[in-house]
Amino acid sequence: MRAVVRRNKKLVCDEVADLTPGPGQILVRTLACGICGSDLHALHHMEHMIETSRRANGDDGGAMGGGFDPRADTVFGHEFCAEILDFGAGMSRGLKAGARVVSVPATMTESGVELLGYSNRLPGGFAERMLLSEALVLEVPNGLPTDQAALTEPFAVGAHAVAKARLDKTSVCLVIGCGPVGLAVIAALKAKGHGPVIASDYSPRRRAAAEMLGADVVIDPAQESPHARWQAYGVPTARAAQNMARMMGQTFGQPVVFECVGAPGVLQALIEASPAGSQIVVAGVCMETDKIEPAIAITKEIELTFVFGYSPEEFAATLRQLSEGVIDVSRVVTGKVGLSEVAEAFVTLGDPEAHVKILVEPGR
Amino acid sequence: MRAVVRRNKKLVCDEVADLTPGPGQILVRTLACGICGSDLHALHHMEHMIETSRRANGDDGGAMGGGFDPRADTVFGHEFCAEILDFGAGMSRGLKAGARVVSVPATMTESGVELLGYSNRLPGGFAERMLLSEALVLEVPNGLPTDQAALTEPFAVGAHAVAKARLDKTSVCLVIGCGPVGLAVIAALKAKGHGPVIASDYSPRRRAAAEMLGADVVIDPAQESPHARWQAYGVPTARAAQNMARMMGQTFGQPVVFECVGAPGVLQALIEASPAGSQIVVAGVCMETDKIEPAIAITKEIELTFVFGYSPEEFAATLRQLSEGVIDVSRVVTGKVGLSEVAEAFVTLGDPEAHVKILVEPGR
Repeated sequence: MRAVVRRNKKLVCDEVADLTPGPGQILVRTLACGICGSDLHALHHMEHMIETSRRANGDDGGAMGGGFDPRADTVFGHEFCAEILDFGAGMSRGLKAGARVVSVPATMTESGVELLGYSNRLPGGFAERMLLSEALVLEVPNGLPTDQAALTEPFAVGAHAVAKARLDKTSVCLVIGCGPVGLAVIAALKAKGHGPVIASDYSPRRRAAAEMLGADVVIDPAQESPHARWQAYGVPTARAAQNMARMMGQTFGQPVVFECVGAPGVLQALIEASPAGSQIVVAGVCMETDKIEPAIAITKEIELTFVFGYSPEEFAATLRQLSEGVIDVSRVVTGKVGLSEVAEAFVTLGDPEAHVKILVEPGR
Repeated sequence: MRAVVRRNKKLVCDEVADLTPGPGQILVRTLACGICGSDLHALHHMEHMIETSRRANGDDGGAMGGGFDPRADTVFGHEFCAEILDFGAGMSRGLKAGARVVSVPATMTESGVELLGYSNRLPGGFAERMLLSEALVLEVPNGLPTDQAALTEPFAVGAHAVAKARLDKTSVCLVIGCGPVGLAVIAALKAKGHGPVIASDYSPRRRAAAEMLGADVVIDPAQESPHARWQAYGVPTARAAQNMARMMGQTFGQPVVFECVGAPGVLQALIEASPAGSQIVVAGVCMETDKIEPAIAITKEIELTFVFGYSPEEFAATLRQLSEGVIDVSRVVTGKVGLSEVAEAFVTLGDPEAHVKILVEPGR
């Protein structure tokens, strides 16, 4: 079958081995698969990503940890919607060929779990076909269009980040960065009834997307401080003497900031700009060493909550929210490409003005 | 009256202005006042501490923020027990002269709140007398000895750090660093019935103190990894593939580490050594810029909870626990000095083997 293969830090269209579903596995036809920021990073920096993942998860497994070789061929793609073609042995759930499904990007095999999109053994969604696990797939409900179902994975990331935030109904949330992660956070906040949500990004295109996904206030940080706007909603200023007030018995609600940029320096800037007692949910993936000043974070009693991925429940809940229109992602996909155009799409996505989300359609 | 004055980065014994209690204020005789690690740091680095505090709290007030001048005279001392001598106008609580009291180290004045020990306007506890606020003082209960009552403030720091930790009765807690902050955390953990508590310090003296305050396991990190010992109690290893497991639906309890060292590099070392899902409560005050690798913290979903100070309720609860023997601090004080010996005691405390806590007795 045809696939886009990462080989020598380039993406090439090539023939790869056909797939046969093993016990508990389903053979699917990939209908659509989003290009993720992690894929862009991994194209050039896979070695570093794997080293980081191994240091975090160990050689004994984990995301990208299980004997993954960055020099060997990889087929990216972990944000997919697919159609069931065939079944391996031991099927139990009564799924039918032709059904459209999504899945967390992990497939159980006899030698362990493979992370789809970051595996040498199984292809991800930039291939005509994939092997999924019957136990993990979810049928696409309510006639949700394929393009939108493929967005379940990136939007589940937002659901998880919001679940990790200590929010109440009075919280005024700040979302810093409106790339795919920031957009998913905005959507998840609004889906849970939180707000006002203040979103900030230097890119006009991304600000427009933030508005589309329900951000109540959208700010260009080159023009205005998002933290200053926060104060207009009654959130205490960064420079108010809250610790002293707390020691004297006053209490304050906890402001929450979502860091969705993932670049060095952003964390410390947020620690400095945020009021005492703030929780900073770190969803943007900064792959470089970063500098912080603990004394400032201590004096303000900042909480840095680093978040990653999602649970199967959050993934399933996100699919439901997309299918029921609680989260409207009908305008998130701004481009579609076939396998032969993926390499070019990776370049195009380097410009934040170009697109919100590009889907790869292997059958195109 | 006599006091130890910080002047030109030196401590000198000198006469300072006598005090008259204003409305709502109490004139007290300082019975005993502990020397804190912050005092040692402030002697040489006050300018940097104030700059940090102003950046965190603003010029409009806050700890050390309110017009405090590091070049002007300061009388340190914020861990005190004192005896009531006289009252200003407007007293309402029926406190009597001769009563022994403790207080959060803050005094309300007509021009705002002064942080005792870090003020140019009011002296801290390294002076024969102080002005306290009637509304904030607590009478020492149950005949608790003065030396032990003076430890309310540093032990309240531990109570606050533990209150910020998401612990349950099954939690195995790790306390890294057994200086005064670490000891207070150990005591607060045991007072709340948590355990086993594993404590780690390079200093034999500090390890002995940790044992004295109830640590269940005390480790020399030069000989053994505290994290390895943690695993013997069933806490998952740092390198287990927990994120993958979580994505597949497994759940884990949250391990909690208390960072009580406050030196650059410790945070990143703990991020690397701790299992996924760990909360690191940062109670040690690192005054330098520190480096972390966000990608590791993200992959492991680490939570960094920076903590500072305590609430009035935590302060009062700590005093109760000391007075009821829930926390036994009878052997924490290892030295006592008069005002003329304070400068020398600051030098002595540079060696972690020398002392656990030195009290200053201005009447000595």
